[in-house]
Amino acid sequence: MEKIIMDKLNEIFKERLLTEVDDRVSYSYDASFGQHLPDFVVQVLSSEEVQKTVQIADEFEIPIYPRGASTSLSGGPLPVHGGIVMDFSQWTQKLEIYPEDLIIKVSPGVKTGDIHKLAEQHNLMYAPDPSSSSICTIGGNLAENAGGPRGVKYGVTKDYVIGLEVVTAEGKLIKTGGSTVKNVTGYDLTKLLIGSEGTLGIITEATLRLIPKPLDTMTAMVIFDDLYTAGKSISKILTAGVRPSKMEILDQNSINKVEDYAGLNLPRSAAAIILVEVDGDPEVLPKELAVIKEALEEIGVKNIQVAENKEQEQKLWQVRKLVSPAIVTSGYTKISEDATVPLSKIPDMFKKIDEIKNKYNLNIVVFGHAGDGNLHPTINTNMRDIEEVKNVEFAVEEIFNYAIELGGTLSGEHGIGTMKKAFMVNEVGEEGLAFQKAIKQALDPKNILNPGKIFPEEGEKRLVLRND
Amino acid sequence: MEKIIMDKLNEIFKERLLTEVDDRVSYSYDASFGQHLPDFVVQVLSSEEVQKTVQIADEFEIPIYPRGASTSLSGGPLPVHGGIVMDFSQWTQKLEIYPEDLIIKVSPGVKTGDIHKLAEQHNLMYAPDPSSSSICTIGGNLAENAGGPRGVKYGVTKDYVIGLEVVTAEGKLIKTGGSTVKNVTGYDLTKLLIGSEGTLGIITEATLRLIPKPLDTMTAMVIFDDLYTAGKSISKILTAGVRPSKMEILDQNSINKVEDYAGLNLPRSAAAIILVEVDGDPEVLPKELAVIKEALEEIGVKNIQVAENKEQEQKLWQVRKLVSPAIVTSGYTKISEDATVPLSKIPDMFKKIDEIKNKYNLNIVVFGHAGDGNLHPTINTNMRDIEEVKNVEFAVEEIFNYAIELGGTLSGEHGIGTMKKAFMVNEVGEEGLAFQKAIKQALDPKNILNPGKIFPEEGEKRLVLRND
Repeated sequence: MEKIIMDKLNEIFKERLLTEVDDRVSYSYDASFGQHLPDFVVQVLSSEEVQKTVQIADEFEIPIYPRGASTSLSGGPLPVHGGIVMDFSQWTQKLEIYPEDLIIKVSPGVKTGDIHKLAEQHNLMYAPDPSSSSICTIGGNLAENAGGPRGVKYGVTKDYVIGLEVVTAEGKLIKTGGSTVKNVTGYDLTKLLIGSEGTLGIITEATLRLIPKPLDTMTAMVIFDDLYTAGKSISKILTAGVRPSKMEILDQNSINKVEDYAGLNLPRSAAAIILVEVDGDPEVLPKELAVIKEALEEIGVKNIQVAENKEQEQKLWQVRKLVSPAIVTSGYTKISEDATVPLSKIPDMFKKIDEIKNKYNLNIVVFGHAGDGNLHPTINTNMRDIEEVKNVEFAVEEIFNYAIELGGTLSGEHGIGTMKKAFMVNEVGEEGLAFQKAIKQALDPKNILNPGKIFPEEGEKRLVLRND
Repeated sequence: MEKIIMDKLNEIFKERLLTEVDDRVSYSYDASFGQHLPDFVVQVLSSEEVQKTVQIADEFEIPIYPRGASTSLSGGPLPVHGGIVMDFSQWTQKLEIYPEDLIIKVSPGVKTGDIHKLAEQHNLMYAPDPSSSSICTIGGNLAENAGGPRGVKYGVTKDYVIGLEVVTAEGKLIKTGGSTVKNVTGYDLTKLLIGSEGTLGIITEATLRLIPKPLDTMTAMVIFDDLYTAGKSISKILTAGVRPSKMEILDQNSINKVEDYAGLNLPRSAAAIILVEVDGDPEVLPKELAVIKEALEEIGVKNIQVAENKEQEQKLWQVRKLVSPAIVTSGYTKISEDATVPLSKIPDMFKKIDEIKNKYNLNIVVFGHAGDGNLHPTINTNMRDIEEVKNVEFAVEEIFNYAIELGGTLSGEHGIGTMKKAFMVNEVGEEGLAFQKAIKQALDPKNILNPGKIFPEEGEKRLVLRND
């Protein structure tokens, strides 16, 4: 059978079909955990090629794993059951702007950063800004509904997609939505497919909406003596009457990691810092920062430093950007979580993470998108230390369950993938999971689209970190 | 069988079960066309009551028709196959604000206007503002994904719902989303259910997100000599670098209807007027209007009147509000459409509507949410004149098809309901329709949730206006 499939794929893809083991290994991992060798890799360049490949997969009932730049932190593109990896990263040909309609049309392999650049050339903005935007593809952003720092004001990927072209599990081509922001013609398949991690259909083109680029930005750094007050100040800022365009938090551990790494003269003794950006008319920005300052003073927070020029502003945002690299270079494995809680519960979450850290004696760094309750508790661990890895699993499970208990979620922006599927039921319940499964079953009855993701398989009860 | 069902419903609802014909007649229509008598009406007040009723409907395979204030323009709540009307309008008990979390939790019968008021008391805003907000219920808004004038800047209902409690077709209770803006735990059932017109599940509670209330607003009226330039100016304004919070258009017909009705000293000879509102910091608003003015002057538009105080501003918005009443009082039947097109195509759409108007010799008034391409071509017709009604049907079909041809949609905000189901396939295609049907079939296999909506039934080929 393998030979027949290979011949059929070869007919379509020629030198864009990869079957050598060295090539396949390059497609066996992403930015999460585990390694899974695909049987074939195809580098697609058109909707027709996607359709034909899906038709082969449908006929022989083998899995298809779509893949962009493989920056996924949740295992989204991992070929956990072998089969075909469909590499979209070469399909960068379509990147068309229609400034009068405020839209951009893209093929799945286009880098998110290239979309930003094109929009900005027209004084427009594509708002979603995942941290990996200089390398990640829009296809991956669509599959996972990627977020980013601007989410607090501008929302996430889903909020900027108004139309899709999609190949179904049967290999049919459908269009969802269109080129208008408003559309209520039947079910909202666009928003169902975005974030469905490639399990319901394969996206081959997207129409993204743009908004006017804000005229200017200003940034302040707020320095805290205790983490609890830092947490409290988030709600305080967001209810003061202005809408920050970014609001990021770094705890003491994060500050010190960055300071060790880059020596930026950061306040090492601070319990936390919050970076707040406001955007809009340059005349209003100082007023908005003054409103924020006043609100913070009401709860006793006084140490607020405003960046006085663009250079200082860039330097502050550099701090946030360096957190991940600083952690990575510490030599251990980095497990980055994205549990998300209602705004008023952020202080409780901080408290809990601190307790968990002490209970399991782990190295946990907390930073993240404070403005939408989307924290990234990140654990540094030695993956060879089986006992410690077990503790990491317990710790992460406790973080998940507490986030859910507070009315929050397992995942704010990374997706479920392989990593968190064992915990789905904790959040959505048996009935909720059955509702989701019914949709999957109806749209992909042979389970060929990215199988092994989102839904727990028999006996899966924990985070995918170990291979035992 | 009818007796058994009645006894079972009576046990749950007592005096809140209505079976007399006079009562049932009151539940037989909405703001669209056609009258359909339900067999039973139940006034629900809890999720448990909804569950029990659905369980009965499931057992006896009879339809359930959820209904709010019945302001639907597309036939959403019409009990086209009899069965049970589930009246949510009495279930107004839950209206709870959590200002620190920027959320409100509501039961389905709460009026949208009451949500606006509560949010404003806390200096916050629930952005979606359907024109019927003083009477419509949030349940109906959720079912149809209602829009409104603020959509151009702030989006529609869907953009402000982060969690739902839902009763499934089997009578199970599930929760979707939660109390956080970001959530990528599995499929986005929240956004799938909103706008699904009660066909996939029955919403029993919603968590809505709030944003800071803008500090101030300013409004200008732009007067045009020709409709084509009015259409062109929409893209021009939206790409000038500011984000209007409302942008509404009225054509000459609309202007004169309002003038006849209310005598507001409007420019009767103008081909169209556009009302533009900007919101935010009071210092910036005049600057933003100046930017808009400059952009318009570039394309030769010079007649721009800025409201100089709140009284003048309210008067301008009064004009927009009076369009519908002014048309209704003309004595004929009003058919209100909501075809939506990409921004740059608005001039073409205006041209086409003008052609259609002349071709069929119809009285068509055009107004609507210009800023998101969502026009309301509205036809006044005598429903007893069969020939004219046929022409109306032809005209509306031509408008739909042209909107689709331009990359737009059948419906921007009213929904499909009974009215437009015959045209679904024109927009989404056979394959797209099959994809949607597969979801419906999976989640409601007995077709008991609002049957006869969205999907065309055997032989349905035209707009539901006539009963023949």
